[in-house]
Amino acid sequence: MKDALSQIKDLIHAHRSFVVLSHIRPDGDAYGTSLALALVLRALGKQAVVYSQDGLSRNYLFLPGKELIERTPAFAPPADTAILAVDTSTRERLGESFLAWNRVPDLNLDHHASNPGYGKINIIDGESPASAQVLYELLEALDYPCPPEAAVNLYVGLMTDTGSFRFRQTTARTFEVAADLVTLGADPALASQHCYQSSSVERFNLQREVLGASRFTCGNRVAYYHLTQDLYAKTGAHSDEVENFLEQLQTVATVEVAFMLEDLDKGVTRASLRSRGKIDVNAIAAKFGGGGHRLAAGIRSSLPAAELERKLLAEIEAALQPFTA
Amino acid sequence: MKDALSQIKDLIHAHRSFVVLSHIRPDGDAYGTSLALALVLRALGKQAVVYSQDGLSRNYLFLPGKELIERTPAFAPPADTAILAVDTSTRERLGESFLAWNRVPDLNLDHHASNPGYGKINIIDGESPASAQVLYELLEALDYPCPPEAAVNLYVGLMTDTGSFRFRQTTARTFEVAADLVTLGADPALASQHCYQSSSVERFNLQREVLGASRFTCGNRVAYYHLTQDLYAKTGAHSDEVENFLEQLQTVATVEVAFMLEDLDKGVTRASLRSRGKIDVNAIAAKFGGGGHRLAAGIRSSLPAAELERKLLAEIEAALQPFTA
Repeated sequence: MKDALSQIKDLIHAHRSFVVLSHIRPDGDAYGTSLALALVLRALGKQAVVYSQDGLSRNYLFLPGKELIERTPAFAPPADTAILAVDTSTRERLGESFLAWNRVPDLNLDHHASNPGYGKINIIDGESPASAQVLYELLEALDYPCPPEAAVNLYVGLMTDTGSFRFRQTTARTFEVAADLVTLGADPALASQHCYQSSSVERFNLQREVLGASRFTCGNRVAYYHLTQDLYAKTGAHSDEVENFLEQLQTVATVEVAFMLEDLDKGVTRASLRSRGKIDVNAIAAKFGGGGHRLAAGIRSSLPAAELERKLLAEIEAALQPFTA
Repeated sequence: MKDALSQIKDLIHAHRSFVVLSHIRPDGDAYGTSLALALVLRALGKQAVVYSQDGLSRNYLFLPGKELIERTPAFAPPADTAILAVDTSTRERLGESFLAWNRVPDLNLDHHASNPGYGKINIIDGESPASAQVLYELLEALDYPCPPEAAVNLYVGLMTDTGSFRFRQTTARTFEVAADLVTLGADPALASQHCYQSSSVERFNLQREVLGASRFTCGNRVAYYHLTQDLYAKTGAHSDEVENFLEQLQTVATVEVAFMLEDLDKGVTRASLRSRGKIDVNAIAAKFGGGGHRLAAGIRSSLPAAELERKLLAEIEAALQPFTA
């Protein structure tokens, strides 16, 4: 890492202007880490903006520095603007507008172990629970400042990507970083209120419809639901305020695999899968052209939802077979 | 605290046998802190058991050292057995069996600011988010060992009483303590799987019934539900695996007050209230003989649920009045 560190110092020294990018359908870690990086660069006297294919979603309007986020423009920035990618496992997930620029990111900072290293400099820590933690450790190593607004953003990234310090990869180090970020200005209760207690009543109504219609099968080892456009219409919820409700299904001890299907536009069905540990849902997703991690994976398919459901259930049942007493 | 510290050292030095007690309807902090204290005492070569009026609830069967928990016996322990109370805001909440002993606890360790200090030695830190944190800091100050099993119990107390590091009073210090406990042997993902992903499908079915029947009123600023014996019968859920579902109602941004009513045996109605911040639900609960904190309070009433509901709604509406634009 020594080498990468001096390369990053050189990169930042050599440029006046920076663009920070993260992945499509951004989550708290994508927004938080990219905003934090832009804020740190500005604290160093640089110009920095955050581009996102999808812009800023309504769930994250509370993030300090949110005015730095713009939709990724069609035209590439000048050649002397450095391009920094965070929290994005593949080049493609940086979004179509970025791909059209035909540029290689100068820095690729991520915590997805599957990241192939598509940047000129690559800082990838697949053990880390969040890109926010990777960036915080980088700032420490570089002895760069972390302004309070950056700390708030990093805290949001860390909190959301660890499911509030619940997921695997949450270590003593994660809590040490959280302690530092709170000391630097993050407010845990406020961040959690923004992230977990700021839904619309429409989203709540969608959630109760979905939970009411969720099905359990294979001796309650599989739970799933189908999020239809009808449910959105019935409840008035917006798709950009709904990540998924799989965490709710996973509260049940017997549930080894939870999944959801969603009808998207243009005949595309999205599926999202979660495993408790025994089943590798990445392997299952791969059979339908999807991917992710062992415990969390996604699929985009041209199969109709009912057919994808049937095929997924068959694959999951087969995967559970060896674990059947 | 210097004085209290040497008093505690003397207390532990002077006794060979200890009973640790916590409050009725124990939660993760009550079980975790009392078990941790007993395990530390045993590591010091002492005899120690944990008494609980309600015994061990099925949700906490995973706690290491759980075999130390017994139902509080009718007869008091010998006079030379020291009695240590943890996480219990009033003497009465230690349970009827304890009250019949007619003994004063030698130590009263708690984080409830309202604790009147009913012990011979009182260690009360009303700023602390959990009794587990108070005990951990005491162990540090005393330079006592914290075996791995004790660390797991303290972590469970800290995690559950902070709502997974979300509630107010979660500070940098809380995260430092969490980091230490993980270093000492606690596993965050495992603890969270035990506490948040180990429900029965019956509990899930009760939850979806409850959410489906929850009502929103006062411009969605109040949300509530009524947990009837019929719902328990319909779903087969056990009351000892159900704390409450108010957290779900509090996900809605507009909800200032969430409350639930439950029919208990013998014509008793239980109510539980939560506030987002503006409304003091402790003051409302006090009008019905209940109490708690500003943001979380409870009531036990002989009023029928429908009548308590009507009266509570009127009080809450009046309390919201000053905040109506």
